[in-house]
Amino acid sequence: MTDRFQQLLASIKPVDMSLTGAVQAHLDDLTKPQGSLGRLEEIAMKYCIATGTTRPSLCKKKVFCFAGDHGVAAEGVSAYPAEVTPQMVYNMLGGGAAIDVLSRHAGADLEVVDMGVNHDFAEHPMLRRCKVKHGSANMAHGPAMSLDETLQAIMAGAELAIEAREQGYDLLATGEMGIANTTPATALYSVLLDLPVEAITGRGTGIDDERLRHKIAVIEKSIEVNRASLATPLEVLAALGGFEIAGICGLILGAASVGMPVVVDGFISSSAAVCAIKLSCKVSDYLFFSHLSNEQGHRAVMQKLGARPILDLDLRLGEGTGAAMAMQVIEASVKICNEMATFSSAGVSGKND
Amino acid sequence: MTDRFQQLLASIKPVDMSLTGAVQAHLDDLTKPQGSLGRLEEIAMKYCIATGTTRPSLCKKKVFCFAGDHGVAAEGVSAYPAEVTPQMVYNMLGGGAAIDVLSRHAGADLEVVDMGVNHDFAEHPMLRRCKVKHGSANMAHGPAMSLDETLQAIMAGAELAIEAREQGYDLLATGEMGIANTTPATALYSVLLDLPVEAITGRGTGIDDERLRHKIAVIEKSIEVNRASLATPLEVLAALGGFEIAGICGLILGAASVGMPVVVDGFISSSAAVCAIKLSCKVSDYLFFSHLSNEQGHRAVMQKLGARPILDLDLRLGEGTGAAMAMQVIEASVKICNEMATFSSAGVSGKND
Repeated sequence: MTDRFQQLLASIKPVDMSLTGAVQAHLDDLTKPQGSLGRLEEIAMKYCIATGTTRPSLCKKKVFCFAGDHGVAAEGVSAYPAEVTPQMVYNMLGGGAAIDVLSRHAGADLEVVDMGVNHDFAEHPMLRRCKVKHGSANMAHGPAMSLDETLQAIMAGAELAIEAREQGYDLLATGEMGIANTTPATALYSVLLDLPVEAITGRGTGIDDERLRHKIAVIEKSIEVNRASLATPLEVLAALGGFEIAGICGLILGAASVGMPVVVDGFISSSAAVCAIKLSCKVSDYLFFSHLSNEQGHRAVMQKLGARPILDLDLRLGEGTGAAMAMQVIEASVKICNEMATFSSAGVSGKND
Repeated sequence: MTDRFQQLLASIKPVDMSLTGAVQAHLDDLTKPQGSLGRLEEIAMKYCIATGTTRPSLCKKKVFCFAGDHGVAAEGVSAYPAEVTPQMVYNMLGGGAAIDVLSRHAGADLEVVDMGVNHDFAEHPMLRRCKVKHGSANMAHGPAMSLDETLQAIMAGAELAIEAREQGYDLLATGEMGIANTTPATALYSVLLDLPVEAITGRGTGIDDERLRHKIAVIEKSIEVNRASLATPLEVLAALGGFEIAGICGLILGAASVGMPVVVDGFISSSAAVCAIKLSCKVSDYLFFSHLSNEQGHRAVMQKLGARPILDLDLRLGEGTGAAMAMQVIEASVKICNEMATFSSAGVSGKND
């Protein structure tokens, strides 16, 4: 498993920045004042560079929503009971969850990935069964996952991305479902980005002040308990992560390994992205951060990464909802690049001298 | 004409805020933590209230791009020559402009409205010929339009909205094309919202420092020259506006008169929206401000209106590009309202006590 993981990391190639000039020249030749489409032009540029072409394709899109349970839920850090994780998976399979609605709206396929839910699901065309275990261990008492389990989840996520590329997908998005998962995500940020727990711990699905103080204490204790095994990013992910987070991390690494861009959802997905970046800094060039989550702490994380998310809609639901929304903006950017007329072809005059 | 205009204003009914409770109860029953879809829920609420139903329809969408020329272009306030206005209209009719690409992407129909271009167009299926005049007069020397011309443009815009409603459209968006039109828009803001010209004058399509100073002087002079005829919002629009701005103002009034929401594009379209609001404050409840323009001054305008635009993508192109993008976010919000499962129907547990 370790060999395959090292091969995966080694297969991620840096993007070819030498394309920048050709892409910029094309964007500037389109019938609009230079730069007047602002971030749509920046996004088009990034997409071109990530995919290695000045006329990129963006036809097939897919949202992967990873689900997993968390032992730390037993500490009472969430407003909802853990049984909501499988219930929401069934809701997604039934087409009634927010991510179903927004994936359909974005024209993206949706697959739910059981990476570690504490429930056994029957086969379903929208469900991918990659369960590593029936939920992570309670990180307040020791590592959430073993290194082997972590690698297994990462590789499963990576294989989904590689398979999606073979199926002709152009763009992937991440999402997740897992009661209590803002707790591990916050712990990961604190350790990997050196941010104080108290400053970045939020209310998740909606806890009160008292439970928020408790959640902060649980996160601090979890970091303390696992202090001896936080030497590498992989160890940090294992000790303080969760199966859906490791799966997303793998999806990102796998997508980067085949030159495919990934749209990262909000607070939880971004923590998986930080793990992936820490494992291989080259993946940054393949990532679009979709939206600024309303979960406390996401702004600080984005600032630390130097990232400016595409949307700011006060979302704090997860599931991939923000990523699905941002896919439409990215698609608009690519269409601008591919479908607009040029000044010469349209017979439009340029600027005054 | 004045009678018809007064009838139009009188026909705008206030929205029924008593629906708020029923809409909120429905949004809170959807399978997500309460409020976790943030601004999508706010937008769904506003759309429901504007359309007077808890299960609104959003199927047919249309972008109206109003075009007009401006006498004040002769003062050298724009980076582009005035002949670009008709050239860009032809580019739109040919399908190669940014607004063509983004309307198609949004699944919205597009119609270009010649409200006052200094060029005679032949018939074209995408062109509506409502020309009042071959461009406005130079507002630096006197009123840009007579009151009669202004009313004619307003009523033409209003009729387009009313006709669109009869054709089954659910949502309209505004856009514009008119070389030099940031100059009248800035003058309108300054007078109608009491904002200092210097603070809100921007570079439009990309002028340098020297031309920016000149533009500020031209706007200040225009306000001074027309000082005697700025007593009412209609007079202000006539003296300092333009045909496409008056057309958009009319579209907004007409849409509000038939209870149809309108998505307002950026800097120019917002100035028409301000005129409409000053003519009838009730229209505010039908308006979605689509994006924060990168044009200097738009932020101050949005703050003055207490509006938080849906997107912030550094756009400064106009044409309706930001409005077309925001249409997709509004559509997502409406689909959330209409298509998500409820807690009871999906068998998902609620919060812990």
